[in-house]
Amino acid sequence: MQLYSALTGNGRKAIIYLHLLNIKYDLKLFPFPSPEMKEEWYLKLNPHGLIPTLVDGDLVLPESNAILQYLADTYDKENKYSYPHSDIRYWSQQRWLYYQSTQFCDALGKILLYKHIKLQDEFLVNRMFDQYDLVYKVFNDHLAENKWFVGDKFTIADLSIASGHYFLWSQIKGTDYELKDFANKFPHVLKWFDNVLQIEGFKEALEIK
Amino acid sequence: MQLYSALTGNGRKAIIYLHLLNIKYDLKLFPFPSPEMKEEWYLKLNPHGLIPTLVDGDLVLPESNAILQYLADTYDKENKYSYPHSDIRYWSQQRWLYYQSTQFCDALGKILLYKHIKLQDEFLVNRMFDQYDLVYKVFNDHLAENKWFVGDKFTIADLSIASGHYFLWSQIKGTDYELKDFANKFPHVLKWFDNVLQIEGFKEALEIK
Repeated sequence: MQLYSALTGNGRKAIIYLHLLNIKYDLKLFPFPSPEMKEEWYLKLNPHGLIPTLVDGDLVLPESNAILQYLADTYDKENKYSYPHSDIRYWSQQRWLYYQSTQFCDALGKILLYKHIKLQDEFLVNRMFDQYDLVYKVFNDHLAENKWFVGDKFTIADLSIASGHYFLWSQIKGTDYELKDFANKFPHVLKWFDNVLQIEGFKEALEIK
Repeated sequence: MQLYSALTGNGRKAIIYLHLLNIKYDLKLFPFPSPEMKEEWYLKLNPHGLIPTLVDGDLVLPESNAILQYLADTYDKENKYSYPHSDIRYWSQQRWLYYQSTQFCDALGKILLYKHIKLQDEFLVNRMFDQYDLVYKVFNDHLAENKWFVGDKFTIADLSIASGHYFLWSQIKGTDYELKDFANKFPHVLKWFDNVLQIEGFKEALEIK
């Protein structure tokens, strides 16, 4: 199995999961961003030139959350970190994976872009902060009543969101792009992330470079 | 079964699929955008206040592509419009669903927003056009060699992309936000969309109001 990736929020997801599952694989890490991701050999695997891409036998699979699901179905047969299709909670797992890849990644992408280009457009900047705040409110409200995103255990839904959260905060901590008053507004997110860090192997996986 | 939705690209996906599957359900259509989607009763079902949401028995499921997958698994048992988990093509179906909900929806959202606010920022506008162009290039290159997105039949991956494409073009046709020279640059996308329109019931489903 070969994983093409980078040390971003999306890029680290499969790296973490393969580490938790204790699966051996080959890792090709791109610097990020890197023109190499737009080279022809890689575009054959991932035509938009994005990371990550997993190659497992005949399967070439882009999309970080599709990869998590594939690894869950194929290599997490005892469902240590996932729910199977036969369990109704599978659909909540799906729902949070999609929410992570849409609203959360969209907010994250805007934050990092606007920070990078020092965008001054007040309307767009305010809109970005509103979305960013709302996503964390949705997380916080859910986590006020649930220890984990789905059911009674840490799953790939938590993994996916935690990987994005960790990356985002590594980029914005101490800058003007930090959400004001985060600890008071979103205490359940912080508590949940502390619980994520207690999952055996998770912290180690954040140190893979 | 109850579907909360609106007549947008994401909102129409489940409407089309339920029509193709000939399933009876209750449809609550919001105008779009609508402050009603931010009312407390609806936020209990969909905490970000987005459409669509499917309620089927005990299951409350937001996220348009998660809903397509749920309907495929639950009501398309003969896999007329989908591939089952046991088939390796299931993962290509997943991959295109995620690509639709990330890169394509992200481009679509920017186009419609920038058009709405008449954004003048040259960097952001060019970046949006580049992404929009690249997504259609990815589609076109794939469709140059494949009649459908996955395998040898129309699936929920085609449905999802076609619904977004139809909505986008209904909003931008004849405006400055149309991609220049589309028919010459992306002929395979146009041919594919013609094929989609031949799927029995698809055109009818585009007329549901």
